[in-house]
Amino acid sequence: MKIFWQTSIYKLLNLVQISNTSNNIRVLDCGAGGNMPSLALFEDCGYSCDGIDISDTQIELANNYLKKNDLSTRIQYGDMRKLDYDDEYYDCIYSYNTIFHMKKHEIINTIEQMKRILKPGGILFINLLSIDDFRCGEGLSVGENEYLQMEDGIQVIHSYFKHSEADNYFSDMTLLSKETRIWERTIGGKLIKQGYIDYILKK
Amino acid sequence: MKIFWQTSIYKLLNLVQISNTSNNIRVLDCGAGGNMPSLALFEDCGYSCDGIDISDTQIELANNYLKKNDLSTRIQYGDMRKLDYDDEYYDCIYSYNTIFHMKKHEIINTIEQMKRILKPGGILFINLLSIDDFRCGEGLSVGENEYLQMEDGIQVIHSYFKHSEADNYFSDMTLLSKETRIWERTIGGKLIKQGYIDYILKK
Repeated sequence: MKIFWQTSIYKLLNLVQISNTSNNIRVLDCGAGGNMPSLALFEDCGYSCDGIDISDTQIELANNYLKKNDLSTRIQYGDMRKLDYDDEYYDCIYSYNTIFHMKKHEIINTIEQMKRILKPGGILFINLLSIDDFRCGEGLSVGENEYLQMEDGIQVIHSYFKHSEADNYFSDMTLLSKETRIWERTIGGKLIKQGYIDYILKK
Repeated sequence: MKIFWQTSIYKLLNLVQISNTSNNIRVLDCGAGGNMPSLALFEDCGYSCDGIDISDTQIELANNYLKKNDLSTRIQYGDMRKLDYDDEYYDCIYSYNTIFHMKKHEIINTIEQMKRILKPGGILFINLLSIDDFRCGEGLSVGENEYLQMEDGIQVIHSYFKHSEADNYFSDMTLLSKETRIWERTIGGKLIKQGYIDYILKK
């Protein structure tokens, strides 16, 4: 059994398994690309999976993985800021390590669209960066705790949140789980400290 | 695919998979009982698993699960305060949601024994309760942030830790991951706030 490094996804999957009794669960991953696409875990659970990403390189990496592992899910080009799906279509929508690469007004707008296309009773998972993160404050400030920071050689927005700042984005949903975590770990011999806030909510 | 609720274990498993190249990985779970024993995940990864628990009821629940799922691992009676195993025997030792049910001097003693029976390069995972937990302060105080609290109808020790208090228990090991997390979730309609510190270390 292969364990995915995106371990927060297992918590989401556990809650989806507990909450849903339907046989036909539809899942959407926004920012689904990369060389180990976590949607593979959802296909392994028997769910119908859609995934979008804005990067052709990351889409190719993900689809190569999916083909190699005999999975039928394919990631497609798509911009999470424009979710052109029917209302109340998905049972589960998530975005992992992605949504915080936008400015806060774009994040709010995207979350509103996610809620629209989520079924009543459906589950939403997003994670945010918190102000505890070691990179908060680095780079060019472009808003309140919003910074342009270098990532893989290009300037990318990173938005950081106070612990309760985003709670009201979800005031019309039921909180299943909120985890505010400071993660210290060694990467390449260097100890780094990352701050995340993981929200799992029910519509 | 069944997802286990003990999702911290997936992070441990991911690090064990990354760190170990041996074909014969030996794992010990201290406090391995209960109706969904996470050792099942380690057997699914092809590892040799030993598990001990101090409660006959929890051992029976775990072994019933393991038999039903055609797994060969069996949990045995054992007290983690007396780990009678050879030096440097295990590749991975863990204790999840268990070790904090002892007084702090017992926790320190147990961790020292775990280090002794862990191979050089082996991985240790334990989680502690933090002082952020909603129950910290409840019950009869029996030491610094140590309380006797009711659990399933009996008085049980709960030891709570400041964020860096336990770091020096592991000063002779390499920190792979430390996650200090506040977990808010709804149980039976009530929102509760739990505080944990998860340590994963390499000998």
